[in-house]
Amino acid sequence: MEKNYIPDATLGRLPRYYRCFCELKENGVGKSASQMLSIKTGLTASQIRQDFSRFGSLGQHGYGYNVEQVCHDLGKLIGTSHRRRAILIGAGNLGRSVILGAQFAMSGFQLVAVFDRKESFVGQIIRNIPVRHIDGLDEFCRENFPQMAVLCIPANEAAEIYPQLVKLGITGFWNFSGYELPYRDGVVSTEVFLGDSLNLLCYKMNTSEK
Amino acid sequence: MEKNYIPDATLGRLPRYYRCFCELKENGVGKSASQMLSIKTGLTASQIRQDFSRFGSLGQHGYGYNVEQVCHDLGKLIGTSHRRRAILIGAGNLGRSVILGAQFAMSGFQLVAVFDRKESFVGQIIRNIPVRHIDGLDEFCRENFPQMAVLCIPANEAAEIYPQLVKLGITGFWNFSGYELPYRDGVVSTEVFLGDSLNLLCYKMNTSEK
Repeated sequence: MEKNYIPDATLGRLPRYYRCFCELKENGVGKSASQMLSIKTGLTASQIRQDFSRFGSLGQHGYGYNVEQVCHDLGKLIGTSHRRRAILIGAGNLGRSVILGAQFAMSGFQLVAVFDRKESFVGQIIRNIPVRHIDGLDEFCRENFPQMAVLCIPANEAAEIYPQLVKLGITGFWNFSGYELPYRDGVVSTEVFLGDSLNLLCYKMNTSEK
Repeated sequence: MEKNYIPDATLGRLPRYYRCFCELKENGVGKSASQMLSIKTGLTASQIRQDFSRFGSLGQHGYGYNVEQVCHDLGKLIGTSHRRRAILIGAGNLGRSVILGAQFAMSGFQLVAVFDRKESFVGQIIRNIPVRHIDGLDEFCRENFPQMAVLCIPANEAAEIYPQLVKLGITGFWNFSGYELPYRDGVVSTEVFLGDSLNLLCYKMNTSEK
């Protein structure tokens, strides 16, 4: 597949397409017409066609999309075959639910360590990964070269630890902290703001009741 | 503010704008120019102007947006002053992190009950809310009329309980289960797919390294 510049809005829909095609594949669907995709994704057929043209040549929409092929192509575009080492900071409820619920391996990552500053968490085993004390962060990173960090800590703690993590070679952040990570050259991130989807639900309920 | 039809893509950005303006307000900013907003939101100034025109008349962008006014207007559009009763199903790590982390009141909801089928959770108090046994769901709903349910359970359990919740009068779902809720007239939902943002991060790391 060719690499083209992909606008942010299109990019934002890429994981949704990938998820839909993976589901179709799991359900044994061989071909999927635009219309079916449109229902599954909630996007118009023309939007989907336009997006797919930006991703490169994916299946042949004239005869319906070839599910397995598109799934493979999108996975390749995303880079899910990578095994970048990831660490997670903050072993509270949020951190635990991310450790237990996120499918790191399916998204190109391998979770190798969990850190917390709370003594009572240290030594606990969550999904085969022991929680380490945050004081050991520097040493661990210098020996194991993780590239990605999941921030499951409050915004003020994220602000404190962010420069240290960047210095230790972390170039990708999966950020649940609500802290707006300042721009650093070569560092990328995705943010999860739970409140956004709750506000959207509020709006939808208002509108639907009228 | 006038009520117009708002396309889904624009709607998806509404919570982001609201969050940005709330932050600006908290930081004591009185006016915000398009350019500053553009940096904060990662969207172009023309995109922002177009979106705001869809939301109705919000501030005067010629002299910069009036932060307090826009914050108030967007909150009103979203409907954050409502206090719809919400229940949460699933008091595991994910459920707990949602109970502890989500700001229900700021998004027009009031969390009134938490349910789980695990006996050992029943009676625990999380943020002043006792965990109830799922067997008491029907009775609770008939007496308290909750309108919204947060699904913090696996997909198969969500599939099982969804028709029951709809029958009990739930018209809005905040869905963390990964289960695709079948369409029901008068029922709305927002989905949280953590994997999507993890895949997007994977893509960004690939692209940034090249």
